[in-house]
Amino acid sequence: MSELKSFLWPKGIVVVGASRDPSKPGHVIFRILLENKRRGLLKANVYAVNPNAESILGEKVYKSIAEVPPDADLGVVVVPAKLVPAAISELGSRGVRAAIIISAGFSEVGNRDLEMEVVKVAREKGVRVLGPNCVGVFSPWSGLDTLFLPYEKVLKDGRTVVSTPRPPPGHVALVSQSGAVGTAALDYMAGEGIGLSHFISVGNKADVDEVEILRLLAEDELTRVILLYVENVNRGREFVKAASEVSKRKPIIALKAGRTSAGRRAAASHTAALAGVDEVYNAAFERCGIIRAMDLEELFDFAKAFVYQPPPRGPRVGILTDGGGAGVMAADKAEEVGLVVPVLEGEAYERLEELRRKGEIPAFAQVSNPVDLTGSATTEMFVEALEIMLSSEELDAVVLLALHQVPGVPDPVELARELARVASRYTKPVLAVDTGWSEAAILERREFERGGVPAYPTPERAVRALGALYRYAQHLIRVGAYESYITSFLKLRGRI
Amino acid sequence: MSELKSFLWPKGIVVVGASRDPSKPGHVIFRILLENKRRGLLKANVYAVNPNAESILGEKVYKSIAEVPPDADLGVVVVPAKLVPAAISELGSRGVRAAIIISAGFSEVGNRDLEMEVVKVAREKGVRVLGPNCVGVFSPWSGLDTLFLPYEKVLKDGRTVVSTPRPPPGHVALVSQSGAVGTAALDYMAGEGIGLSHFISVGNKADVDEVEILRLLAEDELTRVILLYVENVNRGREFVKAASEVSKRKPIIALKAGRTSAGRRAAASHTAALAGVDEVYNAAFERCGIIRAMDLEELFDFAKAFVYQPPPRGPRVGILTDGGGAGVMAADKAEEVGLVVPVLEGEAYERLEELRRKGEIPAFAQVSNPVDLTGSATTEMFVEALEIMLSSEELDAVVLLALHQVPGVPDPVELARELARVASRYTKPVLAVDTGWSEAAILERREFERGGVPAYPTPERAVRALGALYRYAQHLIRVGAYESYITSFLKLRGRI
Repeated sequence: MSELKSFLWPKGIVVVGASRDPSKPGHVIFRILLENKRRGLLKANVYAVNPNAESILGEKVYKSIAEVPPDADLGVVVVPAKLVPAAISELGSRGVRAAIIISAGFSEVGNRDLEMEVVKVAREKGVRVLGPNCVGVFSPWSGLDTLFLPYEKVLKDGRTVVSTPRPPPGHVALVSQSGAVGTAALDYMAGEGIGLSHFISVGNKADVDEVEILRLLAEDELTRVILLYVENVNRGREFVKAASEVSKRKPIIALKAGRTSAGRRAAASHTAALAGVDEVYNAAFERCGIIRAMDLEELFDFAKAFVYQPPPRGPRVGILTDGGGAGVMAADKAEEVGLVVPVLEGEAYERLEELRRKGEIPAFAQVSNPVDLTGSATTEMFVEALEIMLSSEELDAVVLLALHQVPGVPDPVELARELARVASRYTKPVLAVDTGWSEAAILERREFERGGVPAYPTPERAVRALGALYRYAQHLIRVGAYESYITSFLKLRGRI
Repeated sequence: MSELKSFLWPKGIVVVGASRDPSKPGHVIFRILLENKRRGLLKANVYAVNPNAESILGEKVYKSIAEVPPDADLGVVVVPAKLVPAAISELGSRGVRAAIIISAGFSEVGNRDLEMEVVKVAREKGVRVLGPNCVGVFSPWSGLDTLFLPYEKVLKDGRTVVSTPRPPPGHVALVSQSGAVGTAALDYMAGEGIGLSHFISVGNKADVDEVEILRLLAEDELTRVILLYVENVNRGREFVKAASEVSKRKPIIALKAGRTSAGRRAAASHTAALAGVDEVYNAAFERCGIIRAMDLEELFDFAKAFVYQPPPRGPRVGILTDGGGAGVMAADKAEEVGLVVPVLEGEAYERLEELRRKGEIPAFAQVSNPVDLTGSATTEMFVEALEIMLSSEELDAVVLLALHQVPGVPDPVELARELARVASRYTKPVLAVDTGWSEAAILERREFERGGVPAYPTPERAVRALGALYRYAQHLIRVGAYESYITSFLKLRGRI
């Protein structure tokens, strides 16, 4: 395991195949690492190897791997496929125990022999290999970045636009079998403001695969939630064993592509993956507590929920809204994903009824759940109702539909701040919704998330995410890990 | 029917209950109408009625409805509920044949008698009523705007933020039983750049309901797609009849809330709607060709597809991508929504193979469908491959996954422009995807839509929308209306 740590926390990085040509991956990778080093973000030293160059970007270039200083412990290999075995061999001789092979042209194009040769050399020399045919690793905390896609593109009209943004540092790890899905996903995460611990592209998985990566991320303190994009799993039994252990401590959310016969055929031609019958994966995932996302949007919606909120003790969800129709949509989706929307009858009902009698919430408010404060809702009403719902014995979670348009909420940012503050004093999950893309909607959602409450642009997306949290809770309860998980979750976030 | 036109194209609007208090709906409505009039957008004259005010915002106020000039043909009633019957009566006496009742406090809070009185007076006086308990009508083309929600809010820190944006003029009509869902939906549409023909909030539907609105919108030349948010339908038989006729010419997409028992209970307390068993709605919708959306996101994703693209002749979808994983996800979702991803075997396959042999697309490209140009894709390769796929007899539609990150696409905006140009020369539907929220992703999607190709942020959302187009095609074929629909669709967009 220790050599795997070099994939995330290298001390010295050697770019084998660094290039002077700005359009080449071997240039982009070296340049970005160098920039991160100069900015002080990357602590590791960065070395370039290229027998045909004196210097690149003003930095010394080593003629051979053998010349590279001794602190190098991670190789990034960007040479043509046929030169990869020699590069791995030299890295091993030099004492480098971890190598990311960016180069393509192996089993994904039918070139299995060459890939087997790489593995053979790596084993002989004691080098662990990530890839080949991958985009490598991006860790915003450490500045390690081997994505060979520049941040920006210059359009033909001269405009420079952000093209491949990197998400901010955070606690979600993303492990992807597809480099393109991975980088597209990073763009998505950056836009949704989901913080990343590490992005790891496993490519052809000739050596290191998801099994070892799961164990590595389990030990990584920055990672709290693990996302997987997989087309196939090679070592089924070991995967189930590793995932079963890891998922007791950290949620694993998987998007398994190749679910249908059309998808399997596409996967086979994409990564030579034998995607296998979907039911088998479904059963395996369920057994080891992996939460399955059915599309890219769910993957990230779920990630947000798991980072910010604990899994609920039970399925009973309270819906608090200022728009009746939104409450209906949330109730529909709740039942569809296996949650329960109980009619409030006990203390919570009485307390809400009392508010209504005293005129502190509108006379026409609905208090049986969904609790509908109507278009006359104010910030104060929301705060009071949320307090009552979160302290009720009848509810395990609350979905908060706080449509910002209502006149009684003069400041949607303040509303979100106040409600997030209330949520942080309870141990139940709270998920928020404000619909739309106006400044007010975006600012309200952002403020909710600043306060630790994940926020979504439609009622259904929030409820689906709560459904995923509940599925995870059921698994944790089944394997006897619920109490330990929730205690450490709540302590980490200062909620207990 | 003619008096209903005043709801969309009034000549003179009288605001009954116009107010000097800027926080009151009676003020906001009058102010916005006045602003639209002064900007030259609204052609209709605007009159204020309030027995207790001399002038509002510098405009003359009439003491009574009787005094209002004779061109008034639409009343907007914002007085307290108990004063509404008298207001309707006076409007009728004055010759106004259409009234929007914004006021709440009727059947939605159990006050059925008062609502029946309103209806009785309206019938006696020959006034058609929209509402009560609605937010009225917003028509960006004409400047009619009775939403009582100001565009902006001033936050406590002094910032002014857009709160209730209005979508730009376009061809999608939105009819909503819930005012809150309607206004939240407008925010969503504005953000997604979906143009609106008319937004109509039907509220309690005491008089005018979806049946008549459907017929009205069928005759409206600006409206090409009709979206419905409904919790219940009162006149089932008439609704099915009207929808069956209208859907032959214009697609109707419905989000029916109250699908589950929890949702029905919520709907009952929201609009006193007896939501009815979902299966009944499902069967009815299917019979009359209404396309059902299962959540808010689908409603607008589908709307975009229907505005821009024709329904496909069959289920066979070609997937063109520069990211293998994205192709797998699209293929999975395609099969899940009832589409077919055929293996290309005929001319298209041969032409793509030839490109590969000649080195015009990468040696490792997949050409059997999904057609995967890999990370080495260029703008030219995309253009050539799309041409081949759109001219193939083996495909009825194309989903285009054009992830902008690949190095060979220097200008994603140009890529979108070129591909949209190709799409416009064929009669098959094309839907595009670029994932993420970076500038490059947003600009690429926007450029696709400028060129008439709806664009989505995930593969699955695009494929689901194509699935909806196909369901509509099946209905049109079943009722013998496919050829007439598609001919008029393609003519309107200059594609034939």
